[in-house]
Amino acid sequence: MLKLFYAPGTCALASRIALLDAGADHEVVKVDLAQGAQRAPDYLAINPKGRVPALVTDKGVLTETPAILAYIAQTFPAAGLAPLDDPFEFARLQAFNSYLCSTVHVNHAHGRRGARWADDQSSFDDMKRKVPETMAAAAALIERDYFEGPWVMGEAYTIADPYLFTIEGWLKGDGVDIADYPVLADHYRRMSERDSVRRALA
Amino acid sequence: MLKLFYAPGTCALASRIALLDAGADHEVVKVDLAQGAQRAPDYLAINPKGRVPALVTDKGVLTETPAILAYIAQTFPAAGLAPLDDPFEFARLQAFNSYLCSTVHVNHAHGRRGARWADDQSSFDDMKRKVPETMAAAAALIERDYFEGPWVMGEAYTIADPYLFTIEGWLKGDGVDIADYPVLADHYRRMSERDSVRRALA
Repeated sequence: MLKLFYAPGTCALASRIALLDAGADHEVVKVDLAQGAQRAPDYLAINPKGRVPALVTDKGVLTETPAILAYIAQTFPAAGLAPLDDPFEFARLQAFNSYLCSTVHVNHAHGRRGARWADDQSSFDDMKRKVPETMAAAAALIERDYFEGPWVMGEAYTIADPYLFTIEGWLKGDGVDIADYPVLADHYRRMSERDSVRRALA
Repeated sequence: MLKLFYAPGTCALASRIALLDAGADHEVVKVDLAQGAQRAPDYLAINPKGRVPALVTDKGVLTETPAILAYIAQTFPAAGLAPLDDPFEFARLQAFNSYLCSTVHVNHAHGRRGARWADDQSSFDDMKRKVPETMAAAAALIERDYFEGPWVMGEAYTIADPYLFTIEGWLKGDGVDIADYPVLADHYRRMSERDSVRRALA
């Protein structure tokens, strides 16, 4: 059975929602980040990066949200969570999720994880001050150029939706009012009403 | 025909090598980053993010290195650049490339692109000082936990190899001696001898 190592408030939420969307038989294991459990030897044996999410499968462990999401879509094709038979559309979906992980999540992380990239408190404060600007720029770019509607990729709900939903949920804490981005605000509202999302957040 | 928007010294090198590995009929267009061409209206019409690479296909434009690389592997299956028929192995490959883009490339970018995440010169200096530490940590993690050998994913050369090679080429400028990581140093040397790599760097 699939086992998802998870922590509330993190990007692991996207994988949790996708597993529920897929109807995948799975178990969720909470990693207590406040207690540093992600750096404990037993967890590092599962994920040497010391981060969540990690998805334990019968073939081995997967990490990195875009890869886990694509794996869920590919191994539960009946759920229709990705355009698996169209390499261009699949790449377009992967590009969206890659942007979220390499740019938007990274912008967000500068608000609380500045010690990954600098050492001085003044740098952390400076980084934190800029988060509303960088997250607003990303929200504006997605709203203007990358959201097809009614779902991220167009008519079909895909693994891009729970990932974007996860990041939409961070905007308020990052000093961005989602109401300034009506397309994203509407997406967030519709996502919140989905059964998989309610169950993931319960 | 495929058209790759490229700039020397950037991660676009990985896509260029992969196109050559695939034997793909393609054209390369240089984007002059020093002149700010990536922010010119004609380029923003191609890639609203104002970054390289961008791959123009007959179906539309793709961005983000992991997505472009997977697209090349999927559309030129005869080149055998990815385990396309094994969702777990494909996800493991995507996880590796996702780690390079979301963590290792981001670490590197703090050396010269600090203005993405902060505003003060003191923060940029602080970020720059930490780059050797973060890049060394990533190199060590890859060498210890994620390099199967003889290629990144094992016996088969894949799209992970040109991407890792690209980043290996940044280590010296980032204050890391690749000789401290013999597996990576050997990979870099073997990659440098490949015809596709020689042509990409020519």
